[in-house]
Amino acid sequence: MKLLKTLLPAAALVALPGLALAEDAPVAGVNAATDTSFILTSLLFVVGGFLVFWMAAGFAMLEAGLVRSKNVTMQLTKNIALFSLAAIMYYLIGYNLMYPLGTWMIGSDETGGYLSGVIGVAILEAVGVGSDALDDYSYAATSTDYFFQLMFCAATASIVSGTLAERIKLWPFLIFVAVLTGIIYPLQASWDWGGGFLDSQFGFSDFAGSTIVHSVGGWAALTGAIILGPRIGKYKDGKVVPMPGSNLALATLGTFILWMGWFGFNGGSQLAMGTVGDIADIGRVMANTNAAAAGGALVALILTQILYKKSDLTMVLNGALAGLVSITAEPLAPTLGLATIIGGIGGVIVVFSVPMLDKMKIDDVVGAIPVHLFAGIWGTLAVVLTGGYHGEATLMGQVTGIVVIGLFVVVTSAVVWVILKATMGIRVDEEDEIRGLDMSELGMEAYPEFSKG
Amino acid sequence: MKLLKTLLPAAALVALPGLALAEDAPVAGVNAATDTSFILTSLLFVVGGFLVFWMAAGFAMLEAGLVRSKNVTMQLTKNIALFSLAAIMYYLIGYNLMYPLGTWMIGSDETGGYLSGVIGVAILEAVGVGSDALDDYSYAATSTDYFFQLMFCAATASIVSGTLAERIKLWPFLIFVAVLTGIIYPLQASWDWGGGFLDSQFGFSDFAGSTIVHSVGGWAALTGAIILGPRIGKYKDGKVVPMPGSNLALATLGTFILWMGWFGFNGGSQLAMGTVGDIADIGRVMANTNAAAAGGALVALILTQILYKKSDLTMVLNGALAGLVSITAEPLAPTLGLATIIGGIGGVIVVFSVPMLDKMKIDDVVGAIPVHLFAGIWGTLAVVLTGGYHGEATLMGQVTGIVVIGLFVVVTSAVVWVILKATMGIRVDEEDEIRGLDMSELGMEAYPEFSKG
Amino acid sequence: MKLLKTLLPAAALVALPGLALAEDAPVAGVNAATDTSFILTSLLFVVGGFLVFWMAAGFAMLEAGLVRSKNVTMQLTKNIALFSLAAIMYYLIGYNLMYPLGTWMIGSDETGGYLSGVIGVAILEAVGVGSDALDDYSYAATSTDYFFQLMFCAATASIVSGTLAERIKLWPFLIFVAVLTGIIYPLQASWDWGGGFLDSQFGFSDFAGSTIVHSVGGWAALTGAIILGPRIGKYKDGKVVPMPGSNLALATLGTFILWMGWFGFNGGSQLAMGTVGDIADIGRVMANTNAAAAGGALVALILTQILYKKSDLTMVLNGALAGLVSITAEPLAPTLGLATIIGGIGGVIVVFSVPMLDKMKIDDVVGAIPVHLFAGIWGTLAVVLTGGYHGEATLMGQVTGIVVIGLFVVVTSAVVWVILKATMGIRVDEEDEIRGLDMSELGMEAYPEFSKG
Repeated sequence: MKLLKTLLPAAALVALPGLALAEDAPVAGVNAATDTSFILTSLLFVVGGFLVFWMAAGFAMLEAGLVRSKNVTMQLTKNIALFSLAAIMYYLIGYNLMYPLGTWMIGSDETGGYLSGVIGVAILEAVGVGSDALDDYSYAATSTDYFFQLMFCAATASIVSGTLAERIKLWPFLIFVAVLTGIIYPLQASWDWGGGFLDSQFGFSDFAGSTIVHSVGGWAALTGAIILGPRIGKYKDGKVVPMPGSNLALATLGTFILWMGWFGFNGGSQLAMGTVGDIADIGRVMANTNAAAAGGALVALILTQILYKKSDLTMVLNGALAGLVSITAEPLAPTLGLATIIGGIGGVIVVFSVPMLDKMKIDDVVGAIPVHLFAGIWGTLAVVLTGGYHGEATLMGQVTGIVVIGLFVVVTSAVVWVILKATMGIRVDEEDEIRGLDMSELGMEAYPEFSKG
Repeated sequence: MKLLKTLLPAAALVALPGLALAEDAPVAGVNAATDTSFILTSLLFVVGGFLVFWMAAGFAMLEAGLVRSKNVTMQLTKNIALFSLAAIMYYLIGYNLMYPLGTWMIGSDETGGYLSGVIGVAILEAVGVGSDALDDYSYAATSTDYFFQLMFCAATASIVSGTLAERIKLWPFLIFVAVLTGIIYPLQASWDWGGGFLDSQFGFSDFAGSTIVHSVGGWAALTGAIILGPRIGKYKDGKVVPMPGSNLALATLGTFILWMGWFGFNGGSQLAMGTVGDIADIGRVMANTNAAAAGGALVALILTQILYKKSDLTMVLNGALAGLVSITAEPLAPTLGLATIIGGIGGVIVVFSVPMLDKMKIDDVVGAIPVHLFAGIWGTLAVVLTGGYHGEATLMGQVTGIVVIGLFVVVTSAVVWVILKATMGIRVDEEDEIRGLDMSELGMEAYPEFSKG
Repeated sequence: MKLLKTLLPAAALVALPGLALAEDAPVAGVNAATDTSFILTSLLFVVGGFLVFWMAAGFAMLEAGLVRSKNVTMQLTKNIALFSLAAIMYYLIGYNLMYPLGTWMIGSDETGGYLSGVIGVAILEAVGVGSDALDDYSYAATSTDYFFQLMFCAATASIVSGTLAERIKLWPFLIFVAVLTGIIYPLQASWDWGGGFLDSQFGFSDFAGSTIVHSVGGWAALTGAIILGPRIGKYKDGKVVPMPGSNLALATLGTFILWMGWFGFNGGSQLAMGTVGDIADIGRVMANTNAAAAGGALVALILTQILYKKSDLTMVLNGALAGLVSITAEPLAPTLGLATIIGGIGGVIVVFSVPMLDKMKIDDVVGAIPVHLFAGIWGTLAVVLTGGYHGEATLMGQVTGIVVIGLFVVVTSAVVWVILKATMGIRVDEEDEIRGLDMSELGMEAYPEFSKG
């Protein structure tokens, strides 16, 4: 996502006609153009927001399709609960923690601070607000910005639930989600998107969140997977026991939903729609996002055919998603061809890292770590290929962002997971896990009439 | 939905720049600003319209997931058929019955009439219409308004199909839908949204239809459920026999679809996007809508955990939907915190009223009566907490609207149901019901290869 | 889709305020209005584009629901792979082959040529482009146009996969898709939408592609079905053996997705949103599109009830889709009533032609030939009822377009299919087909835990 600061050019551009008209009709002329720009950018957030919301459904369907049928109700419950919880935590703490409110920042100087936001609930503009009372007339309505940003926070939590499926208890998982969405996510996001030190001092560039959203979810998932341990029977006598997903139609639907939602995720992260350059950029971003997904899917299709003599649908789905994650750090600057290649490399990463994780006995039920963490790192590094949309991204800056955010998330996540493990426990009983979480934890099957083969 | 009348401020605002510019460039200046406002509000209806359309898919998936597998094909058939029928009835009668055509109203005086519309098919503006020939240049294209309003009418009918599932015959159900969408819905909607007496004389305030859409569907469903009777075997020896839904993944998908569609349902009901205040309001509405859904879901999650020691996914889904219905009468005025609470109370209502209905032996297969009727009433009353977006809603006015519309729908629905029962019968034979409607009525299974457990 | 050329009026209209203001504030005035028009039309493509993208998910779900469970993984794989491949082929060749780049055309004179485009990869406008450097300032951003047009190309390929399901090999199918989306589709589309001879010399009118998208997919599917032959056991002892779809909930979801996506397909094909007339037209198009779908669904519902004494859900689904295809050649000019009738006739076509194809032993697994080819031809002819949005469509012109494009696609498709058959073979082994393509070709079941009845 472009930094708030980098929006200045857009604001300046919008003001231009006003200056030109200044002699004839100063106030009205300026307002008409600026109003239109304000409405259009806010509209971008409204449309982007409901598209990114839709990704919550995508994660739910993808994960419900990739777990075994005895854990489907639980996976669905976790997904709708985590989204709801994220909405409340981001309202209570997250939004204001993430974004600078005025100029106050802890440890700030002119080049950005370590904590850009403040603690307090999100407050939207008043009903029927006039242009004189807007929080930022050169940008967009706070309500639409909040709506859009909230969905990113929730997406981060969705990534975690897939990896830890089929063995983690409901309530400790939700407590982790509360900390992740209320504190961990917004704090690190403020370092770059809130104008903090990663942006101002290192020029870290992450357009829509390959690192800030996807790898954050991935690191939290990886930390959890290690502390939680693999599912019973997954690694037996040195072999990996396949535990195929119960409903690949649902998993494919989830992938298509995520792909669609990503147009809002990346397209909306242009953060401006008031000029011809902005809308052309939004088009570029969406076309590149689509190209990268296509590249990731096709590479996974071809590569699994070559390696295993049979194409693997779950790899193709994760290939598409890895392509999407890979382009997310910089969907604007590449050409369509380069975007296809960046996404294709995401597909390569998935095909090789899924078995690698299994070798390390890290049990990632849906493949979220390869998709969101590994492809997220790759995508963040790939920004250097073009220098990013502002042409100033450096390898050093990108690596710094990856490492700083990675360390922060791993440490804070580990602390939370370990405390949860020590206090209430994070894992269901062995017997319950074998029976399935649906009956043991919830007493409700997802497909009560379909007998098991 | 804001009344047509209350749109005057928006129109006035749009005219303002024109006035300011009047001396320099009167016509062109006015047109540019008004054109943009007209296009943007029309665009709101286009986007809102396809989102509310999407709710038809949501209802279909929710209901198909919550019925037993022997009735899934029938439930899918009813849902696509009712939407199609609603489209035709609203075109033939409903649209013009609902909205004032010019100033003519039966029983009208300056404060609004009892029947605001007229009888006749909907007619859209001509192809490539110019600004001089628009039906309402200060508002939006009739075509886009029609597209948006039609979807609300269809949603009302969708509510009924879930309650009466697994036992009502296809054709009498569709005849009821024709009367509901052609006459009952548009007539009562005209009393408030068409500028009729509930609006003008009682100040009844229902932003997007907690009462006018949701409780109307709920009352029609309740009346039908009582006349139709419960499913065979549902209440046996004083006990409630659980009949679990066949596919909770589908039901969850349906809930996410409805949640997404609701952003159009409530957001589009702002009915204007031409000013900075309007788009900020749309953002408020969407953020509040999301907060209420999250509140309803989380409360249901926690409450079922406390009451039953196990969280109940179907309650969580209905909790989210009840939260959405609860905020629908006034999604604009509350703060995010209040919206969360209003939605949360919707969740409480669902958790307690689902078993209450069962005690009364009213068999509501999907829980539509708690969600749409009870939470709809709550939401309509909750408008008083803020006074509504125009600050004038009173408890008296809200209760009047709830009672008048409730009585009207119960009486008219009962008449139609009783006539249908007396003439063609509304219920399938006992044997057919036990066998399932899919094979007995349609001869086609939804999942022919999945054997039943 | 309106021709590029016919957009001139929109551009002229936009320029009007500029002219009026010319004396006072020439440059700024023109820019403000033209900028807004440019942004809005580009936004139409962005929204239309993600809606048409969504149709890829619709086709995947529809087809996965209508095949038997032993072929579901393969059908899902084909659908995500064909979309990805289409994205790459349209980038590499298709986009520039389809649209005129400047004025150069093979065989062109002032009335349009036989090949309007050129060979070369698609190139979008530069990042942050200014209004002076836009490819077409009177229209929309190339990036958004590309994004939108790509989705139409992919939809064409989606049509083919359903007909040939359950017996065609993965890789030869994908090679066909590459040729279809890279060459066949864009070449014939250039003859009308690219300003080629069907447009300029015959006045062929196809608003959103009843012929150019749907019948092209249909002809390719028909040719493939004949060369590939029917599934084993489908036609036995002079009888048609029913092979019911494995998941009608999924098929219904797919239909709703397609219906929703069609609002972008037809609405976006207005190709302009910068004037009040354009947005009113977009509303007309969407309302008519919805009416036609409703008409097609209801007619199929009633007709199957009359003919077979039982309504047939799969016919209702295909009826809705046939209604959508029927209105696609001209969704703007008809009234709502006429649109309903045009769609309804689409429903009639489906109900009668599905058994007719079976009599001819042409095995079309999902009914794509009746829906996309037969209803596509009907829709293209139905343009004559209104004369089309520009009032000049003739029966002669429409028939010419249908025949020329039909012949071209049948011949080129047949050549590709025959070459594929002769070289690598297009059909799986008999044993593999009976076992199901999921296990034999991919080694992965879609529903591994649901035992088969």
